[in-house]
Amino acid sequence: MNAPTADQVSEALTNTQTSLSLIWTLCAAFLVMFMQAGFALLESGLTRAKNVAHTMGMNFLVYPIGALGYWAVGFALQMGGSSAPASLGADPRPVSEISVTVLEKSWGIFGAHGFFLDQPTPAVATLFIFQMVFMSAAITIPTGAMTERWRFKAFAAFSLLMSMFVYPVYANWVWGGGWLSALGKQLGLGHGHLDFAGSSVVHMTGGLTALIGAKVLGPRHGKFTPAGEPVGIPGHSVVLTVLGTFVLAFGWFGFNAGSTLSAMDTRFSVVALNTLLASAAGAVTATFYVWHRFERPDVTWMCNGMLAGLVAITGPCAFVSTHAALLIGAVAGVLVVLAALFIEGTLKIDDPVGASAVHLASGTWGIVALGLFANGSFGDGANGVPGAVRGALYGDVGQLWASLIGIVANLVYVGSCSALCLWLVDRLFNNRVSLHAELRGLDLPEMGIEGYSPEYRAPARRRAPPELE
Amino acid sequence: MNAPTADQVSEALTNTQTSLSLIWTLCAAFLVMFMQAGFALLESGLTRAKNVAHTMGMNFLVYPIGALGYWAVGFALQMGGSSAPASLGADPRPVSEISVTVLEKSWGIFGAHGFFLDQPTPAVATLFIFQMVFMSAAITIPTGAMTERWRFKAFAAFSLLMSMFVYPVYANWVWGGGWLSALGKQLGLGHGHLDFAGSSVVHMTGGLTALIGAKVLGPRHGKFTPAGEPVGIPGHSVVLTVLGTFVLAFGWFGFNAGSTLSAMDTRFSVVALNTLLASAAGAVTATFYVWHRFERPDVTWMCNGMLAGLVAITGPCAFVSTHAALLIGAVAGVLVVLAALFIEGTLKIDDPVGASAVHLASGTWGIVALGLFANGSFGDGANGVPGAVRGALYGDVGQLWASLIGIVANLVYVGSCSALCLWLVDRLFNNRVSLHAELRGLDLPEMGIEGYSPEYRAPARRRAPPELE
Amino acid sequence: MNAPTADQVSEALTNTQTSLSLIWTLCAAFLVMFMQAGFALLESGLTRAKNVAHTMGMNFLVYPIGALGYWAVGFALQMGGSSAPASLGADPRPVSEISVTVLEKSWGIFGAHGFFLDQPTPAVATLFIFQMVFMSAAITIPTGAMTERWRFKAFAAFSLLMSMFVYPVYANWVWGGGWLSALGKQLGLGHGHLDFAGSSVVHMTGGLTALIGAKVLGPRHGKFTPAGEPVGIPGHSVVLTVLGTFVLAFGWFGFNAGSTLSAMDTRFSVVALNTLLASAAGAVTATFYVWHRFERPDVTWMCNGMLAGLVAITGPCAFVSTHAALLIGAVAGVLVVLAALFIEGTLKIDDPVGASAVHLASGTWGIVALGLFANGSFGDGANGVPGAVRGALYGDVGQLWASLIGIVANLVYVGSCSALCLWLVDRLFNNRVSLHAELRGLDLPEMGIEGYSPEYRAPARRRAPPELE
Repeated sequence: MNAPTADQVSEALTNTQTSLSLIWTLCAAFLVMFMQAGFALLESGLTRAKNVAHTMGMNFLVYPIGALGYWAVGFALQMGGSSAPASLGADPRPVSEISVTVLEKSWGIFGAHGFFLDQPTPAVATLFIFQMVFMSAAITIPTGAMTERWRFKAFAAFSLLMSMFVYPVYANWVWGGGWLSALGKQLGLGHGHLDFAGSSVVHMTGGLTALIGAKVLGPRHGKFTPAGEPVGIPGHSVVLTVLGTFVLAFGWFGFNAGSTLSAMDTRFSVVALNTLLASAAGAVTATFYVWHRFERPDVTWMCNGMLAGLVAITGPCAFVSTHAALLIGAVAGVLVVLAALFIEGTLKIDDPVGASAVHLASGTWGIVALGLFANGSFGDGANGVPGAVRGALYGDVGQLWASLIGIVANLVYVGSCSALCLWLVDRLFNNRVSLHAELRGLDLPEMGIEGYSPEYRAPARRRAPPELE
Repeated sequence: MNAPTADQVSEALTNTQTSLSLIWTLCAAFLVMFMQAGFALLESGLTRAKNVAHTMGMNFLVYPIGALGYWAVGFALQMGGSSAPASLGADPRPVSEISVTVLEKSWGIFGAHGFFLDQPTPAVATLFIFQMVFMSAAITIPTGAMTERWRFKAFAAFSLLMSMFVYPVYANWVWGGGWLSALGKQLGLGHGHLDFAGSSVVHMTGGLTALIGAKVLGPRHGKFTPAGEPVGIPGHSVVLTVLGTFVLAFGWFGFNAGSTLSAMDTRFSVVALNTLLASAAGAVTATFYVWHRFERPDVTWMCNGMLAGLVAITGPCAFVSTHAALLIGAVAGVLVVLAALFIEGTLKIDDPVGASAVHLASGTWGIVALGLFANGSFGDGANGVPGAVRGALYGDVGQLWASLIGIVANLVYVGSCSALCLWLVDRLFNNRVSLHAELRGLDLPEMGIEGYSPEYRAPARRRAPPELE
Repeated sequence: MNAPTADQVSEALTNTQTSLSLIWTLCAAFLVMFMQAGFALLESGLTRAKNVAHTMGMNFLVYPIGALGYWAVGFALQMGGSSAPASLGADPRPVSEISVTVLEKSWGIFGAHGFFLDQPTPAVATLFIFQMVFMSAAITIPTGAMTERWRFKAFAAFSLLMSMFVYPVYANWVWGGGWLSALGKQLGLGHGHLDFAGSSVVHMTGGLTALIGAKVLGPRHGKFTPAGEPVGIPGHSVVLTVLGTFVLAFGWFGFNAGSTLSAMDTRFSVVALNTLLASAAGAVTATFYVWHRFERPDVTWMCNGMLAGLVAITGPCAFVSTHAALLIGAVAGVLVVLAALFIEGTLKIDDPVGASAVHLASGTWGIVALGLFANGSFGDGANGVPGAVRGALYGDVGQLWASLIGIVANLVYVGSCSALCLWLVDRLFNNRVSLHAELRGLDLPEMGIEGYSPEYRAPARRRAPPELE
């Protein structure tokens, strides 16, 4: 073998970098996929034992149903107008080449190619997996707010619609080259609406749909007194709630740090640190705020505080300083408590697991925070705009405006599209179970199986044959 | 320091690629190791609370016992006739150099060097870990089918034998340079028997042993009416079942994508996508088939459907198109239901968790599917045969024949060897617990501890000292 | 574009290696972070259902509280006198440049820069995350020994102190360039006190604090008969115990293998293998020793045996042969049983989960084992001493002396500092809950919430409205 030339080595190095970026992105995607288990555990812990098969069933089936819906339609709508990130490798058939946007790319509304994806390149396959599990997280969120009374058939149909239409279109606007990402280049509003890992795309979408869904379904039987006072309905297992939160916090490292989509962009380390510290700050402020206000360090609120910190830092994580990350998390930890009390006490909406407070309120705060605290240390060239990203406090008020437009667009589009889909599903299948099923628990009527066998709940010794005791 | 030459850079790059491949393979192995927890949860959820310490105990101890048995004997039998993959690095002491096959390599039956492995190179250490956790998954599978009545001592002895002899020999035939892998080079049957990540090596082996074990043990007391009709014995926790399935699906990405054993082979992205979509298809078809047939979307079947899709795609995942992966998963989701009904209703074999349906039926289907749907897009040079791998539908009927020979070889060797080991263990320790222990639950008689304390199952308030209430 | 020169390619390769090392270290850190869930599950499973919200709450909150305390103070004390490992990348602002040790570096006691870390480089951010999660594991350990009677407020305050002062100072001595690491260079005692991944830094620190805490709190009501005989108080869920152990064993691969802090040091493969085999040996010897001694294969002991093997191999994992790793694990599996019986039966200390036996006894054994079995195959240049690391059995008795000094230093410093902090916290908040709360269970009195809702524990059918049955 002849000595290799610098050219040959350079090419081999590029391939190595591609492999590394694919591996980084895939491993992150696997972690995000595992968050499905976290959502299932969190929600089940916060609901009653009589509905646990139903809650677990929704959190389980949402993943395969969403995968198929996203494969058939969603991915094309979302990414069918853009190319796979260059970091994922020179790609003989990138998304961009098999697809064009239906509108001018710079004002794109949705992509139109890549339906029923077949035989993608490694780069596109990786991008698909990564985007799919993000979508899956978003469409899981409503199951928490709508649990204990949502008909399983309606859930399944709605989740399919959400994976195909609701989520992908807004995601296209932000991550697929759509119009929100072009606000900077076209209108000079900073770098356009930025959302590093999904405070708006994933969490506001999921949280807003959760809020609307909970409103549409109405409160659970007994949730409000005749006078309209909310009644506490405790979940059945703190163990599941805490375990679910840990699983989510674990997967969130993939969620945020993996969103560099490139192994060569070492900003992922800073992202991971900001994620860690914001989650800690959220958990601590929520704990102590609740401890002070209600005189008990309720474990449920510790968990929701950590999740609120995570949701809030998701959007700005790459753009802000360590100290700002701590502030963002700390504010989120208090905000989530206030939001939950407002939703329950003032709006009279029954969200059993607090999904809308955690995801909608904190997600919105995260996007605002990006528009305020982005400190010019990252994001040079993002969305085609030269220079690093600066928020209003660092001199670029346009960036804050772009954030606000992104928020309004989410509220308008996701709000109306989710409401439409919920209405459609209600017409087809009825969204709400019968009062009989609700009182009895949804497990047998809806799923045909008890979440916990009666044998498990009653002491074993009573059922053993007497002669054996 | 002088400027580096291209040669020096090239060498450093090779080292970097080696590191990356080791890291990729190790991370995948860690994920596969975590699947042990998934099996434990899945099986425990599907069995009764009175046996949960026993079921968890088996799923736990199988991992360390198997590790030691495989370290002492199994690894040498399996890999002691082959070398570590080149991608894992230039290795000053590869397996191949410390070992020779006892027979002609091209018709190898088992390896014979590497017993009681000591101080391996990084490449061999990594290969050992990766192969060990695969073996561990295989020998965990029978515990599900044999639970609620298997004597713990017999389980421990059988698992040791399986890790030492049953699994490694068949694995040698397919992955260790043995005769099944040589069917292509020697007889011109395609590329010989191929199994990318273990539909036959892991899942058929585990599933067949599970079926035989369940048959040998006989059904649980009360499983069949005197007239022979099967009676449903529900498991005690859907939460554990769903959580276990998620853990398995999470780990499966390591199982399949990691099986490239090389970070430079970016086919792992396609493998991950096929794995994801087949699992989704399996879950969805199983759910809707059961929903239609039994008029309820039983969560247990959702889970087994996803697992069936995963098992089926495990063998062909690298060789087939996206659409074929979806088809393979979709068929597996229905097949697993039919297989379980057949095993229970016709064969009258009591497999409490459906392990034989999930692993044997779907594993067999996966190997057949490889022989049918391999589309010539991957596998150039596999098993020493030039050209990509094509199944019967893509012009190479020989590949299907190799698959079928691989299946028959598994049934004959694993079937007889497992039956022999079960017989031996029965002679030594008795396989089945007493009726007394079975009725009472195996936890106290076999493990000396209740899986759930009585305090946990009965309401707490009853046992608190009255003066404190 | 001109052809790249070898120089340019070399620089790009260095960047790639940096990325790879950062990714390797981060992924390992994520796995270690997930061990928090493992500790929570393990401890909760081993305690009673009436205290489960309290136990989960401690294991949860320790993570965010510790993160903030470590960010504010601990990291600076630990690493503020050293630089980020070169493998993590050329760093324009390494820890070393923003910090100096207060004493001569070679005899450092603690670092003094890096408080309230802001905007670190990727290398420092990664180092922070990795070190933080190790610290978090250490301060979680005492919650197990002190559970079922520790006031939540006192726990929170103590954990903060431990993350800020107790852990970081000893960690500085070993990993931050402190005096224990200089014993070799300064006094010629081998390579100084070595601890590859934390048998002393993490596990002895946590285990010793656990032992002291359990002693200070006193035994649970009813743990000892008036005659001083220990009474078994079974935990409430073997499922949680086993699951927690699996999660810990999974995360431990990151704990040990990730401690290379470099992707280019392929010793991580050997580390992973030694970790796996020592854990298996510990589980198996503990199982069979207990089975033989108490005539039952208690699942709890299987788990603690595996953990003991893991703790023991953590320190020496990179320095010893495969066979030595097996021996180290095997000894640990028996030792942990003897230690637990000694702590309970002779010292009359009530450690509900066996944390001090697992972490202190096995951790100490691991450090001794390093001093005995290090075989000269690794560690050239460690702590600034040329030549590979050899233990007493391989010719360097000084290495054993360094180990013993490291052990004594841990016992003295951590012992006194923990005791002081516990005393301080007791003055401020009272360490122990009231007898009323202890008998009733700590969940409602301390946390304001039941770990399991009453509805969950009692059979569902009793509470359904009669007309619906």
